Amino acid sequence: MENYRVTFLPMDRVFQAEDGDNLLDAAMKAGVHINASCGGNGACGKCKVMVRKGNIFSPPHQAISPEEYEKGVRLACRTVVHGDAFVEVPLESQVDRMALKRTRETPHILSPADIGQLVAGVDVDPAVFKRYVELPPPATEDNVSDLVRLTRELKAQYGIDDFSVDFGFFKSMSRILREARWKVTVTIVLTRRGYKLINIEAGNRAQENYSIVVDIGTTTICGQLLDLANCSVVRMTEHMENGRDLCTLAESSDYNSQISFGEDVISRIMFSRKKGGVRKLQDAVIKTINNVIKELLASADIKGESISHLAFAGNTVMTHLVLGVDPRYIMLDPYTPAATFFPPVRACDLGIDLSDYIHTYLFPSVSSYVGGDIVAGVLGSGMFQREEITLFMDIGTNGEIVLGNKDWLTCASCSAGPAFEGGGIEFGMRAGKGAIEQVRINPATFEPMIITIGKVKPMGICGSGLIDIVAGLLEAGLIGQNGKFERDARTPRIRAGESGFEYVLSYAHETQIDRDIVVTEVDFDNLIRTKAAIYAGCKVLLDNVGLAFKDIDRVIIAGGFGHYIDLEKAITIGLLPELSLERFLFVGNGSLLGARLLSFSQGFLREAERIARMMTNIELSNSPRFMDEFVAAMFLPHTDQNAFPEVMDRLGSKK
Amino acid sequence: MENYRVTFLPMDRVFQAEDGDNLLDAAMKAGVHINASCGGNGACGKCKVMVRKGNIFSPPHQAISPEEYEKGVRLACRTVVHGDAFVEVPLESQVDRMALKRTRETPHILSPADIGQLVAGVDVDPAVFKRYVELPPPATEDNVSDLVRLTRELKAQYGIDDFSVDFGFFKSMSRILREARWKVTVTIVLTRRGYKLINIEAGNRAQENYSIVVDIGTTTICGQLLDLANCSVVRMTEHMENGRDLCTLAESSDYNSQISFGEDVISRIMFSRKKGGVRKLQDAVIKTINNVIKELLASADIKGESISHLAFAGNTVMTHLVLGVDPRYIMLDPYTPAATFFPPVRACDLGIDLSDYIHTYLFPSVSSYVGGDIVAGVLGSGMFQREEITLFMDIGTNGEIVLGNKDWLTCASCSAGPAFEGGGIEFGMRAGKGAIEQVRINPATFEPMIITIGKVKPMGICGSGLIDIVAGLLEAGLIGQNGKFERDARTPRIRAGESGFEYVLSYAHETQIDRDIVVTEVDFDNLIRTKAAIYAGCKVLLDNVGLAFKDIDRVIIAGGFGHYIDLEKAITIGLLPELSLERFLFVGNGSLLGARLLSFSQGFLREAERIARMMTNIELSNSPRFMDEFVAAMFLPHTDQNAFPEVMDRLGSKK
Repeated sequence: MENYRVTFLPMDRVFQAEDGDNLLDAAMKAGVHINASCGGNGACGKCKVMVRKGNIFSPPHQAISPEEYEKGVRLACRTVVHGDAFVEVPLESQVDRMALKRTRETPHILSPADIGQLVAGVDVDPAVFKRYVELPPPATEDNVSDLVRLTRELKAQYGIDDFSVDFGFFKSMSRILREARWKVTVTIVLTRRGYKLINIEAGNRAQENYSIVVDIGTTTICGQLLDLANCSVVRMTEHMENGRDLCTLAESSDYNSQISFGEDVISRIMFSRKKGGVRKLQDAVIKTINNVIKELLASADIKGESISHLAFAGNTVMTHLVLGVDPRYIMLDPYTPAATFFPPVRACDLGIDLSDYIHTYLFPSVSSYVGGDIVAGVLGSGMFQREEITLFMDIGTNGEIVLGNKDWLTCASCSAGPAFEGGGIEFGMRAGKGAIEQVRINPATFEPMIITIGKVKPMGICGSGLIDIVAGLLEAGLIGQNGKFERDARTPRIRAGESGFEYVLSYAHETQIDRDIVVTEVDFDNLIRTKAAIYAGCKVLLDNVGLAFKDIDRVIIAGGFGHYIDLEKAITIGLLPELSLERFLFVGNGSLLGARLLSFSQGFLREAERIARMMTNIELSNSPRFMDEFVAAMFLPHTDQNAFPEVMDRLGSKK
Repeated sequence: MENYRVTFLPMDRVFQAEDGDNLLDAAMKAGVHINASCGGNGACGKCKVMVRKGNIFSPPHQAISPEEYEKGVRLACRTVVHGDAFVEVPLESQVDRMALKRTRETPHILSPADIGQLVAGVDVDPAVFKRYVELPPPATEDNVSDLVRLTRELKAQYGIDDFSVDFGFFKSMSRILREARWKVTVTIVLTRRGYKLINIEAGNRAQENYSIVVDIGTTTICGQLLDLANCSVVRMTEHMENGRDLCTLAESSDYNSQISFGEDVISRIMFSRKKGGVRKLQDAVIKTINNVIKELLASADIKGESISHLAFAGNTVMTHLVLGVDPRYIMLDPYTPAATFFPPVRACDLGIDLSDYIHTYLFPSVSSYVGGDIVAGVLGSGMFQREEITLFMDIGTNGEIVLGNKDWLTCASCSAGPAFEGGGIEFGMRAGKGAIEQVRINPATFEPMIITIGKVKPMGICGSGLIDIVAGLLEAGLIGQNGKFERDARTPRIRAGESGFEYVLSYAHETQIDRDIVVTEVDFDNLIRTKAAIYAGCKVLLDNVGLAFKDIDRVIIAGGFGHYIDLEKAITIGLLPELSLERFLFVGNGSLLGARLLSFSQGFLREAERIARMMTNIELSNSPRFMDEFVAAMFLPHTDQNAFPEVMDRLGSKK
């Protein structure tokens, strides 16, 4: 892909753009502030720039007069880069250089190409595989049973011996062998107890071996369709297409239909205690999984019969509910799950709309609140293979953290609260179309620069947007380290609202909801509690093993907002520790990453179990040390200012 | 039990009778001929004897005048022995001494007490067992998952480790653990792939561990209910009650409902090729099995939930049909079954009316026509453990034979035809109530002495009766060695009938069917073909390994008629080789014997598979050598008269 130089004037900042990049995005990435309130959909008309020269495409717009258009004025949000360009940012958008002294790097978002860097030993050797065999037809001098004939050939041709046989396989075997004139493809699964023959097809279908991995979140269910037969490590590590490796044929996600029975795991457990509750919750989550599978198959144009394996990663409660197992004891002191290691089940026993014989692997959990999704994440992170100390954080409805290396792993669940998923935030929403996901506050004018997901008019604020807002307001001096507004701020955007003081991000006419979108001090309180719980959890884990934040070699951040979070802003508010940025790595959905590894490689199946057994769970909920650390972290960035010297330096320079 | 001396006069033959013995039975066993045509129910009035003195009970009867009764005349079939007695046999019943020179021994019928003699290493150590465990309840400092808590305790208390878990077990575990206040009984099955937890019950139920074994015959389905928890080898070998060991709580049998779709396996396979045929046949056999199970449970007053294991032994076609697997290729050249080793299945997958989790073990087969019933029989016979050469014969609808010892086993199926089960015999019937099962022909008067099963009026002739008849007619000189009647015989019982010459066993008024019951030359032809096939099969197996009949140390005879067959008569007609009688042993239903061993002892599970692999199948159907031997055996007893010197001697002495 060709790179173009986009030079922003008068600050003379150069951004390496790719063909087709949006100019407002480019400015955001380059750290150039351009006012924008409507999220990037052209409604507010505020993001005017003047294109001096350059190969760009930008249609006329009602906010731009013909005279302006003639002079080169364009809306940045409507402008697409097709070559080198010089772009002048108008005075009203400019920020003094002090506020922009940092040259921001593209965040360390892990692309599939980096899997090889994270995890070693990723051979393509799936636990569910297909083998094509041609059998000599029966003859008088060789009239062994069909099953012996088949397994004899599997042993001779592939060295695979000592099988068990699925009953369904057995029932159709003789007919298919003969219809196929003794040329068949056998699907074999390697279980903890050895090989098992699960399916037989006529002809050579060895190239049609697909798997589906599903991350079963309390809120969102994400699936990926994998091509197990046509994947090689080369492809996994070197080729990419739109940020997906070629093995991943399709992705799909949907909200967990259980949401109608409660927002978080606790309310789901409460519901499960009603008569028929467990069954209703199971039906709901399975319905969503079936929808996701259906979409995956449709988008890749693959038939359900070609799927031969499922791997599910979910938290402990979700895993119980997928299995239809009563989760109530998880919530009752002393918080015991039914199991942390789950028997493999057949898809049909769960109600999955796929062939009966398909084995469903469920990632093992560690405890009631550190589930299979985290075990999958640790697997995907490769931290269990490394000498270096890694801190793994999965920030979603809860915040789960894992600290350790190849020799030891310790973990905890922080009851972080759902602020990053929009919970407890007045205009909070999940990271979906219309969510404000990137925000800059001009420290001179206090005007915001807003980009929404999908560049449509804003509907609300998602987690990464909220971090940007709080960090921006803090850096602009509009709020104090206690999360309260400076009452004498000189901007009409700060005003007294129904729940105290608030900052207006978008005015009603710029939004989809015809209401002013604001952030309030109550929102800040919630965010601070959430980030404090996560930070305090990390501190307790470190203390437990006699380490400090500086000893951490690598911080791996997983979670739905992993792709969008601004690392420096997250440090600014004290969600993440102040470490050099190259130590951070985003992996996006870590559970899917681990589930994908497990699907591709037998060895990782055993590793997943080993990891789950190796992880030592620290219960934070009743820990006085955790409470102390939590209270200490209820400040922006922290009451211990020595832990955030650079942030304090930056904030101090503003005063 | 006290023994009484019953002395038959004038031949002065003494019989050791037990209290309550029937006098006609005693005479039959003593080799004393007493005319009797009605099977022993008092209708014909022919079995008159004079009781000189002795303690007997015999009610008056219309066939005996008051004067006769006064003199001591009684009907033998209505007389019960209660002490020493002297019984005079009237002239019309007497046989010259020549015909009675042999002192008959009670046949070697294996009682359960003899299992220890047959098979070594019968430890009571069932593959499905229950263990009672008391768990420490969860606590804050010990809040591992329920499953870990349970398996931890199983390991600590019983040393059982490395489990897999049945999905159903998993779903009910947490609830039952708590309802039972952490005191539970776990059912564990040892599979080829290790231990599996299959059921959990509240409280201590370790003593309620039952198993059902079923012999699935083409004609008859027999089941036994076993008490796995309260059985010891001591009980198995030393105690008996009504001929059953105490471990066997109940027995039940029923005709296979598949009979309505055809009499033999070939006609069943033909039916299976119709649309929905396999399913109909499966439903039919499962229906019968369910009936047998229901009766077993009712008769022992045990609930279905207490059953934890099933073991089925059937021929290869029956095993296919029980599993719902198409058996058609068994009949088509080159006669390949779908499998000879069958995956263990859950009862619910077969439609068995028992708990879903129950594992059903199906005995492995050797080939299309040597099935799991024979493997079970060989297991029960112990021949696979011995140095001595054993010939195992299972004579039912087919005749299956196994020759060998602990080092080698060779087997064959002889298409014997169902003559011994009544097939192809004009008045043939299965061994049930009203079947003529024991017959003697008075060589002087040519009058028959007939005993039926249940001592009711006769309805037909079963296998053992037919052997007695043919041997009796041959010894009386009424038929020749070619199976044809001597046309100049001086008895009205031989006459020209619709299908040639015939001998009248019972006249219409003496029967339940109001027709004369006869045997014809067509019947003899069928019987001769059947016995010739079995004898020829044995000969081929022996020739194959360079042995002769005289090298056989032991002949073990299994099969439905095993309890009734008269050894010497079977030798007389050439069904069995002429060997000294002590080499023969009857084991009754050998399949049930083996299935019982397998249920009681894990080691025999592995032995069953080893036996099936070890058995070399010899295909007789296309073998010219078999055809030669078959033709040679189409004579009574055989064309090679040197093979039967004693029989020839006896026959010669008649001439």
